[in-house]
Amino acid sequence: MSISIEIDAELVRHFVFELAEFGRVGESGVTRLVYSPEWVAATDQYAAWCEESGLKVVRDAVGNVWGRLEGSEAGKSIASGSHIDSQAPGGRYDGALGALAGMIALRVLKAQFGQPRRTLEAVALCEEESSRFPSANYWGSRAITGRISPTDPDRTIAFTGETMSEAMRAVGLDPARIPEARRDDIDSFIELHIEQGPILEQEDTPVAIVDAITGIRHYNVRLKGTQNHAGGFPMDIRRDPMAGFAEIASGVVNTAHRMGRPAVTTVGRAVVKPNYPAIIPASVEFSIDARHPRADRRRELYAAHEGLMREVAARRGLEIDWDIQIDHEPAPSDPEIVSMLQRVAREQGVKTLTMASGAGHDSQQMASIAKVAMIFVRSKDGRSHTPDEFSSIEDIVQGIKVLAAGLHALAY
Amino acid sequence: MSISIEIDAELVRHFVFELAEFGRVGESGVTRLVYSPEWVAATDQYAAWCEESGLKVVRDAVGNVWGRLEGSEAGKSIASGSHIDSQAPGGRYDGALGALAGMIALRVLKAQFGQPRRTLEAVALCEEESSRFPSANYWGSRAITGRISPTDPDRTIAFTGETMSEAMRAVGLDPARIPEARRDDIDSFIELHIEQGPILEQEDTPVAIVDAITGIRHYNVRLKGTQNHAGGFPMDIRRDPMAGFAEIASGVVNTAHRMGRPAVTTVGRAVVKPNYPAIIPASVEFSIDARHPRADRRRELYAAHEGLMREVAARRGLEIDWDIQIDHEPAPSDPEIVSMLQRVAREQGVKTLTMASGAGHDSQQMASIAKVAMIFVRSKDGRSHTPDEFSSIEDIVQGIKVLAAGLHALAY
Repeated sequence: MSISIEIDAELVRHFVFELAEFGRVGESGVTRLVYSPEWVAATDQYAAWCEESGLKVVRDAVGNVWGRLEGSEAGKSIASGSHIDSQAPGGRYDGALGALAGMIALRVLKAQFGQPRRTLEAVALCEEESSRFPSANYWGSRAITGRISPTDPDRTIAFTGETMSEAMRAVGLDPARIPEARRDDIDSFIELHIEQGPILEQEDTPVAIVDAITGIRHYNVRLKGTQNHAGGFPMDIRRDPMAGFAEIASGVVNTAHRMGRPAVTTVGRAVVKPNYPAIIPASVEFSIDARHPRADRRRELYAAHEGLMREVAARRGLEIDWDIQIDHEPAPSDPEIVSMLQRVAREQGVKTLTMASGAGHDSQQMASIAKVAMIFVRSKDGRSHTPDEFSSIEDIVQGIKVLAAGLHALAY
Repeated sequence: MSISIEIDAELVRHFVFELAEFGRVGESGVTRLVYSPEWVAATDQYAAWCEESGLKVVRDAVGNVWGRLEGSEAGKSIASGSHIDSQAPGGRYDGALGALAGMIALRVLKAQFGQPRRTLEAVALCEEESSRFPSANYWGSRAITGRISPTDPDRTIAFTGETMSEAMRAVGLDPARIPEARRDDIDSFIELHIEQGPILEQEDTPVAIVDAITGIRHYNVRLKGTQNHAGGFPMDIRRDPMAGFAEIASGVVNTAHRMGRPAVTTVGRAVVKPNYPAIIPASVEFSIDARHPRADRRRELYAAHEGLMREVAARRGLEIDWDIQIDHEPAPSDPEIVSMLQRVAREQGVKTLTMASGAGHDSQQMASIAKVAMIFVRSKDGRSHTPDEFSSIEDIVQGIKVLAAGLHALAY
């Protein structure tokens, strides 16, 4: 017997657009870096809305804001949320939508169904984007999962030079107390997020249930040759790192393409030295971002990339070395929560498909302490990390409906 | 009946190493930008050495320094020289060696053979490297050939922002007088230069006679796609300009390689935006430097490059456009001077080969007002535009011997 969940679209629109005022850039952009004045104001607003929704507000040691709806039974919580920080600039939806969705779902559940059996929590996580601190690496969820080491706050340096410790103290948080943010009483975590890709749009479907978060590896590769005059040096005896880079970049992209969806490989960054038209470069440093949600296929993808790099460098007489800057294993969602979400979506009349997330998310961290799953909402043109990112309020309401129904199934 | 020409190796070494003190950087580097204090001091030294060698010094309106050995007959001059400015930093030999070689040749000819029949001139050209003003584009030889337009001095902007006009005035030169530097009384111009490539070294030969300067074209290409999240966007629907760039760069390099020597193509510069590992780039802007000394092969090379760029962009759904920033026709040397230099080299017992220059040189400009040819001296490891460039005094002496014998053949 399915329940009926009513989501007020106008209220959703109000929350989304009001929150986007904190750090607004231009028409639709948002720059809300962790521990900035805009971030402080946004978390205050989120806390106020939680209180107004009948949730008990708790701010933890890193500034995650929790809105708690106490259950009638003891036991672990069912939580939902996402990050409240943004790219610089990002849009209105990435992260913020999930923090709001958790709060809205709890507000609606409380209003419609009263006290739950199990405790429900909404959360605005303090940091996910690494847009102020390039190595912050899920600051909010890492604190919750106890994965921030005591030396991290001083070693985590902003693009503008200050340490994470300094930034925390500036907003009244004590880095020494970070361990207090650790939680061991969360049973399940469901994160709603925009898709940040075009698949839902292509499939004419508003919502997806996410059955895994992809495994990600970032290689930083240095390819060195011999700098020479572009005119005087015959092609057959050059040690040209640009020629090697071009072959590698072309090859890794083709490898992922041939492997087929959901394999992806991106060369997003390349720095050429000295970078003059008439000089054969001395070196090219570049990134390879390679992702697959299945552990075995992921290993195949990486092996193919590394094999190609070694082969091209050897054949062209180039020096090559790389380090792996990010390496996240795929995080499968909890299969029972996935099935349950598929079921409640059907019951709510929301059309969904099931897919892997190609982007990393806080849920990947949360998976170390809780059962996790995610809900995606369709993105216009698949755009994200830009002020142009857009999801319709209609689709968002569908997503929140699935989230609320899922939380209801787990907590009532 | 061949003459015997004596070159004092110790004196050559003295001139080369003393001139390299003006703007010296580290052990063997030289940074001597046009109209800088180091440049002024170097031209003063060059003028002093010319006078000491019995040449009449004339400084023209752009600061080229001429050392003149008047002939007994009226008529056009036979000239030899190269540029006295440097890369930042370059080495001791690029340009400077040719300016010195002209002076040394005239000094030796005067000492050994007295007054020539035809007037001989040595010249230190003020600027060739575009290392202070990126669009200076052979400032010294362009002034001599009357190719500097009246608006050029104000439109030619240094990397550090000042105009060429300002730089000239700062050293007491009046930009309005540039037309006075034009010469129409030079019959032949022979430029000695280091090879800047590895061919002489590979062929175990100290000196080359240059029968053509290669044609050069620089494309500046802009390739635009759609910036997207590296995780969320399937490979098959990306518009990834990095993938297109990699394919183009790899392809143009291979095209030149397959065409064989002396075709060359270099992608020396690439600027990726936004240049982050986890973002499919919005755009890649890059250079293609393509060269061939034969007009027909050059056209084939360019047609192949342009065809590939259009094909890749169309197939990948990328926007592409380019402009051509440099486009020099090949400049064949005067065949009679080439034959004569080959002959006098044999007479002097100097082993030579005949090759095209893959680099651009002042001779290319001078070809518009005079018969030209060049003499190359072997470069160690083919290196140039670096403090590591090196040519042995022994090879240099061989090169100057051929130059002096060639000037003797034309002027005595």
